[in-house]
Amino acid sequence: MVATISESPVLTQDELKKIAAYKAVEYVESGMILGLGTGSTAYYAVIRIGELLKQGKLNNIIGIPTSKKTEEQAISLGIPLSDLDTHPVLDLAIDGADEVDTYLNLVKGRGGSLLREKMVEGACRKFVVIVDESKMVKSLGGSGLAMPAEIVPFCWNFTATRLQNLFAEAGCVAKLRRVAETGKPFMTDNANYIVDLYFEREIGDLKVASDEILRLAGVVEHGMFIDMATTVIVAGECGITVKNK
Amino acid sequence: MVATISESPVLTQDELKKIAAYKAVEYVESGMILGLGTGSTAYYAVIRIGELLKQGKLNNIIGIPTSKKTEEQAISLGIPLSDLDTHPVLDLAIDGADEVDTYLNLVKGRGGSLLREKMVEGACRKFVVIVDESKMVKSLGGSGLAMPAEIVPFCWNFTATRLQNLFAEAGCVAKLRRVAETGKPFMTDNANYIVDLYFEREIGDLKVASDEILRLAGVVEHGMFIDMATTVIVAGECGITVKNK
Repeated sequence: MVATISESPVLTQDELKKIAAYKAVEYVESGMILGLGTGSTAYYAVIRIGELLKQGKLNNIIGIPTSKKTEEQAISLGIPLSDLDTHPVLDLAIDGADEVDTYLNLVKGRGGSLLREKMVEGACRKFVVIVDESKMVKSLGGSGLAMPAEIVPFCWNFTATRLQNLFAEAGCVAKLRRVAETGKPFMTDNANYIVDLYFEREIGDLKVASDEILRLAGVVEHGMFIDMATTVIVAGECGITVKNK
Repeated sequence: MVATISESPVLTQDELKKIAAYKAVEYVESGMILGLGTGSTAYYAVIRIGELLKQGKLNNIIGIPTSKKTEEQAISLGIPLSDLDTHPVLDLAIDGADEVDTYLNLVKGRGGSLLREKMVEGACRKFVVIVDESKMVKSLGGSGLAMPAEIVPFCWNFTATRLQNLFAEAGCVAKLRRVAETGKPFMTDNANYIVDLYFEREIGDLKVASDEILRLAGVVEHGMFIDMATTVIVAGECGITVKNK
């Protein structure tokens, strides 16, 4: 696959996502309980797993989807599914990320599935993250794009303000995520809202920040995945880089 | 009121609750933004506030209810209401508790309103807790009754098991709360489930326990109210005791 890249210097972001996804699926073995990620990169991994099952190159896979969307995709591909209640320990999960820092900490959840992703991926022996090189950052929040938090709808503005105040020193701005077409609040699979946090400066100690966020009553979960990824596969113009924890 | 008690040595638990509630309402002043608690003891406080408003002894009170049930009660009594989005800082909240330890830490939420209670009572300058003496414990969990956690319905059994495992050393047993009549899971005002945790031995450091619970993806909030109460009013056969932080 690396050879393919060097022959074709101008790959689209979608092609890079696909390359990373296919590489990650090499980690999958027959008989595994497998966490199936959500989003545009994980989409390719799920397709690839379906292909290998159909070709008989993989057998006895059980998938645990991280969203309703991935559940539908996996069903359409004939991947057998189960859930965390039945399989509380998974062998491997494959998923994309919105940001990856130098310590392999992640921001996830721009797709809105952060809670289920964190539940599933926190229950895995191995968690392989697949990204194109545009997702690599020096520190989380560094892309200038959103770090999401899932919150209960009750008095959401109060909770959003408290989140923004928590990170006042980092120049944080909190915005309720809305559906572009309707202007209504975006609803997660758990019927909660998402507040997107934008940072001007570094967040600081991530574990401290995580606990401070979770201590706010009204916050359900946040999109920082700290110390969870075991491998990150980065696809870029110069080939594939595999980073292990 | 203390005089009344000594004249009547056999007071019912309901009478003790009422005595504590009336005493707490003495802290209310005209013009206050007031958190209105939920449960059998707070019920009497809300009634008393309604009475004093009607009698003109209190004016310009704005109530912030901690549950749909209290909202309905307050409306029926003509208490003007608002919410945390409009009034993010409250002067005073009055509410009951299921357990109070010697440091005035609380267990709340056997009524199922712990999340909204924690949001409202965490936003108060003063938080007066009203209990009868049966609620006093040496350490939280000590009553042998439930310490509740609000969790998302998705894979609830997985989350309940993780909660139970977290406190294996304390002999913790986790049970999904169900509606007695139907056997269906009890639903909170936020459409979440409640897992009740029963402890055989002491929980240990409460702040550590709190962070560990909140770090579990799938947990929304728990019923330990640590360092939140500023005053606890205890009504017992021997009179009223007021404990200040």
